Amino acid sequence: MIRVAVLGAGRIGQIHAANVAANPRAQLVAVVDPVESSADALAAKLNCEASIDAAATIARSDVDAVVIGTPSDTHAHLMLLAARAGKAVLCEKPVDNDLGKADAAVAELKQLSAKVMMAFNRRFDPSNIELRRAIDAGEIGDVRQVIITSRDPGLPPRDYVAHSGGIFRDMAIHDFDMARFLLGEEPTEVYAKASRVVNKALMEEFNDYDTLMVVMQTASGKQCHINCCREAVYGYDQRFEILGSTGMLMNDNLRPSTVRRYNANETEALQPLLNFFLQRYTDAYRNELDAFLKALQEGTPMPTSPWDGRQALRLAEAAIESVVTGRAVKV
Amino acid sequence: MIRVAVLGAGRIGQIHAANVAANPRAQLVAVVDPVESSADALAAKLNCEASIDAAATIARSDVDAVVIGTPSDTHAHLMLLAARAGKAVLCEKPVDNDLGKADAAVAELKQLSAKVMMAFNRRFDPSNIELRRAIDAGEIGDVRQVIITSRDPGLPPRDYVAHSGGIFRDMAIHDFDMARFLLGEEPTEVYAKASRVVNKALMEEFNDYDTLMVVMQTASGKQCHINCCREAVYGYDQRFEILGSTGMLMNDNLRPSTVRRYNANETEALQPLLNFFLQRYTDAYRNELDAFLKALQEGTPMPTSPWDGRQALRLAEAAIESVVTGRAVKV
Amino acid sequence: MIRVAVLGAGRIGQIHAANVAANPRAQLVAVVDPVESSADALAAKLNCEASIDAAATIARSDVDAVVIGTPSDTHAHLMLLAARAGKAVLCEKPVDNDLGKADAAVAELKQLSAKVMMAFNRRFDPSNIELRRAIDAGEIGDVRQVIITSRDPGLPPRDYVAHSGGIFRDMAIHDFDMARFLLGEEPTEVYAKASRVVNKALMEEFNDYDTLMVVMQTASGKQCHINCCREAVYGYDQRFEILGSTGMLMNDNLRPSTVRRYNANETEALQPLLNFFLQRYTDAYRNELDAFLKALQEGTPMPTSPWDGRQALRLAEAAIESVVTGRAVKV
Amino acid sequence: MIRVAVLGAGRIGQIHAANVAANPRAQLVAVVDPVESSADALAAKLNCEASIDAAATIARSDVDAVVIGTPSDTHAHLMLLAARAGKAVLCEKPVDNDLGKADAAVAELKQLSAKVMMAFNRRFDPSNIELRRAIDAGEIGDVRQVIITSRDPGLPPRDYVAHSGGIFRDMAIHDFDMARFLLGEEPTEVYAKASRVVNKALMEEFNDYDTLMVVMQTASGKQCHINCCREAVYGYDQRFEILGSTGMLMNDNLRPSTVRRYNANETEALQPLLNFFLQRYTDAYRNELDAFLKALQEGTPMPTSPWDGRQALRLAEAAIESVVTGRAVKV
Repeated sequence: MIRVAVLGAGRIGQIHAANVAANPRAQLVAVVDPVESSADALAAKLNCEASIDAAATIARSDVDAVVIGTPSDTHAHLMLLAARAGKAVLCEKPVDNDLGKADAAVAELKQLSAKVMMAFNRRFDPSNIELRRAIDAGEIGDVRQVIITSRDPGLPPRDYVAHSGGIFRDMAIHDFDMARFLLGEEPTEVYAKASRVVNKALMEEFNDYDTLMVVMQTASGKQCHINCCREAVYGYDQRFEILGSTGMLMNDNLRPSTVRRYNANETEALQPLLNFFLQRYTDAYRNELDAFLKALQEGTPMPTSPWDGRQALRLAEAAIESVVTGRAVKV
Repeated sequence: MIRVAVLGAGRIGQIHAANVAANPRAQLVAVVDPVESSADALAAKLNCEASIDAAATIARSDVDAVVIGTPSDTHAHLMLLAARAGKAVLCEKPVDNDLGKADAAVAELKQLSAKVMMAFNRRFDPSNIELRRAIDAGEIGDVRQVIITSRDPGLPPRDYVAHSGGIFRDMAIHDFDMARFLLGEEPTEVYAKASRVVNKALMEEFNDYDTLMVVMQTASGKQCHINCCREAVYGYDQRFEILGSTGMLMNDNLRPSTVRRYNANETEALQPLLNFFLQRYTDAYRNELDAFLKALQEGTPMPTSPWDGRQALRLAEAAIESVVTGRAVKV
Repeated sequence: MIRVAVLGAGRIGQIHAANVAANPRAQLVAVVDPVESSADALAAKLNCEASIDAAATIARSDVDAVVIGTPSDTHAHLMLLAARAGKAVLCEKPVDNDLGKADAAVAELKQLSAKVMMAFNRRFDPSNIELRRAIDAGEIGDVRQVIITSRDPGLPPRDYVAHSGGIFRDMAIHDFDMARFLLGEEPTEVYAKASRVVNKALMEEFNDYDTLMVVMQTASGKQCHINCCREAVYGYDQRFEILGSTGMLMNDNLRPSTVRRYNANETEALQPLLNFFLQRYTDAYRNELDAFLKALQEGTPMPTSPWDGRQALRLAEAAIESVVTGRAVKV
Repeated sequence: MIRVAVLGAGRIGQIHAANVAANPRAQLVAVVDPVESSADALAAKLNCEASIDAAATIARSDVDAVVIGTPSDTHAHLMLLAARAGKAVLCEKPVDNDLGKADAAVAELKQLSAKVMMAFNRRFDPSNIELRRAIDAGEIGDVRQVIITSRDPGLPPRDYVAHSGGIFRDMAIHDFDMARFLLGEEPTEVYAKASRVVNKALMEEFNDYDTLMVVMQTASGKQCHINCCREAVYGYDQRFEILGSTGMLMNDNLRPSTVRRYNANETEALQPLLNFFLQRYTDAYRNELDAFLKALQEGTPMPTSPWDGRQALRLAEAAIESVVTGRAVKV
């Protein structure tokens, strides 16, 4: 049994803590949050200890691994703290919102030979696992083009926009990671275009964008397109399409039910998509934790590394630079 | 070139005449209708002769084949007239609304070795051709169950109901033929249940039904279910499902376009189905005529025979008997 | 917190026990199985007590409710034992394989005003809940026809066939319940036809069938068709279609992923269906337990009663009689 | 009746000539081709005159309109010849492969107030008509993103590649036109990236590409992505997706039938897509001609103008410039 502490008792921390509690490979030792009432409530529900002290919890001898679900600007610090103490880490993206700090953290983590996995949950979605498996099995021959559609159901609150780090670092970062995951090669060139068509005033206030399109290419000529929008009224839209030399794979979305409606105005109508990432990626979060624990138990490499976190961030930075300069950026 | 006369200038005659005119194997010689203005109008549009005299037209030495699209109670008579004159015949269903008369006609046509094809248009629908081809190719192994869904977009006018011969002989007759086509074996037992849930008063007035369900079984244990309703508000619904020992085939419907809609209330919504049989089976009517002409040119057997017409009618009669007696009827 | 004991530690008992353990409304007190090692293993995994004595466990003052997942011929006995002790019951179908015994049990349970719910899990599937909700909301007007497709992925083992009670009582019983659930009216007439096309020898040995079709009608003329087959090579096939006066609802199946394949031979190909009922109805079992616990907490009527269990069994018996007599059976 | 001559008796000329012959608004007077045998064969089939002299045919007083389906480098010349003679013109794309010549032709045609329609057939596809209608009806609010997928079933022959003008001018030109059609605004910035992953040697030989991605943006911030590949083994892939502020529209492809296959390895499999543009856009070509004739008869503006042809070419040129410079190009 791997003894786990979960840092952060917010939305994402609650998901991780519940998955730890339910996973047969793990024992949930403690949940940590600077807001004592949050830590207490989650601990009571899951029958574990509560704490407001991350450092002390990391240091406990009965903690083998920590899951980091705290604000972005604490990730690098907490990962290093845990790694130095010899603890395994499952850390939410990003490594850091600053590429320089991320690079420093990645370097030290590498030197420490730390067992650190970045929580790119989408790689662990059953359908995305199947995409990767089918590509690896040669079902579509050589990958030629990847098209990624990624749309949120609605604009986040003003306060979130203020601190998100921007649409490229906050939202598209998942898509940059999926691009690398599906292309199987590093993009060497990034072009991006961004606009403000959902809420111009809000986006201008924070120098952010709500709508974007990206084109990337690898050294061998494989291409990837990403399109994102902060608002899709029909739900959380997450689709992937991979054109290969002998076939194509597509990954559609999920709905709350499989009921189809027919009436005088329409046929085959399904319900709106699942509303947001917690519903859409429920299985992905569970699989992700299990992949982390399994790799620990079996001593195999972490499925996603801090370097993966750094590379996705690097693509986001290049995209931002491209928006500013109007040219493709070499990576 | 096969020289063809079309008997009947109504809705179905117009379809056949236009297909003859466009078919490279055929030349349209004349169209015939007792209503002179109807015959004239169709002839003018298609640049052929008009006539009000079916017998005289059949007798013309420059007519090789006739297409019969006249009222049901004239079919047997006209088929025999043409067959006795050595002309090939493509005749709309049914052979006759009376099983005794149909049997007599079938017997004489057989004795004459007449080249007569019954116009069961659904067998020539591209998707139904593909169903039969896939079954013959062994793609689903042995057929076990056939499910046929057949719903009209709305109740026919009162006058049509008065003279249709009833829902089993008029509407389900196509489904009985498709059952034989897809089962590849004759049903030996028929059970049917009918009700009046669309327009009770109208159906009671003419001792007819608007909604029915049928179960049939063959000697080897293959089963078939047919469900019909005179009213489906979402369009003309024609589906087929064939469960086999190694797979299943399904045939869905067509829409006017392939556009799918997403909005806050729904996703994947398509347009209503095509409204009725002329739109749904446009290709089927064209393929049907071509199959008739090709069989004539190549001297191969007619794809559907008067016996097929008789057998579908026999199943319809058995179904009616089952409704009355409440028991399955042996055929 | 409702204190629950689970009777039966087999395949279905394990599902129920895990759901009780995870449900915030309930506390899992004990699991019971005559095979001590089975009870012990399940109890260890879920951190509760184990027992081999159902009667003693039911009698415990710290048990408020029992879930019965034992063999069919013990259901009536255990339900009555629990009900007489004032305990609430969630019991797997059937009430009993014998209609007479089922009727006696239903009568006594009624007299006791016992809180007993029959575990017709399909009613609690998210998509089936949505079907019922949409019908109740008037989205398709008056229900006219219900078509139920219900196919197992493959023949059960010989030993199972020997003791199942036959395809009508064992497999189609769920479909008879769903027919009542979706029609919203009691069928008054049942016709059934059954055949042996999957494994003739095995079915003849046990006087059972592997393939069936049913037609039922209600007093107001609503119709329902059920088709079942013990073998569908593409997976566990569970579909529902409801034709109403102003629309139609269809409920499709689930697959392990939403990936669609395109290659030189085909397009839009999805994976096979989920393999069997535990995978297909995972959410249904969880929702079912929650509905039971919620009704207990809130004092509302049980969502499904022993009477529902009896009625489904009555339809199965009528279907068997129809197969034997070749006539429709009045219910 | 509009009297029409068709210039060019090749693949596309044959389509146009057959549509003219079948259209009730038109009379097919003559077909013209420098290869006398081609002109003769087509004329014989469609019962009209044949000619090898385009200029003389255009000049005939009994010719009201010409359809131009000749090689690209003759389009501008023939359009002007016809326009100066007061004849209406339906001309295949492009205006010319050279933007300068295209501009000159557009200017003179404008001065002549010539009735000239560019044959952008995709605008007349029933599903694309429905997309535009739905946008105009406000069904998805403001358009935000357009995603266009456009893939040929396989590489064209070497000789075609040698003279096509390149993938941007030859293939993507249709997509640039559809982008303008669906955006409802002119793109002001074009970025394109092209690669050689299907046949590197062939593409290098002719300095062409087989795979490309484009991103465009309009002044108001609407975005459009185009992806093209010369080879999609599953058929001719033509899809459109339009994300709006209150909904989304998608346009899927057609198959030869609607049959879906289920077996032990897969479910819902459809046949490959229709093989190429003549099959996919059969209705579009017919609708296109009818739109041209209808506009002539009713004196309404041509649905697509030489200016539209010029604008699509301008976007293709900008895309090529972007590939060379690695920067977005202002248009």
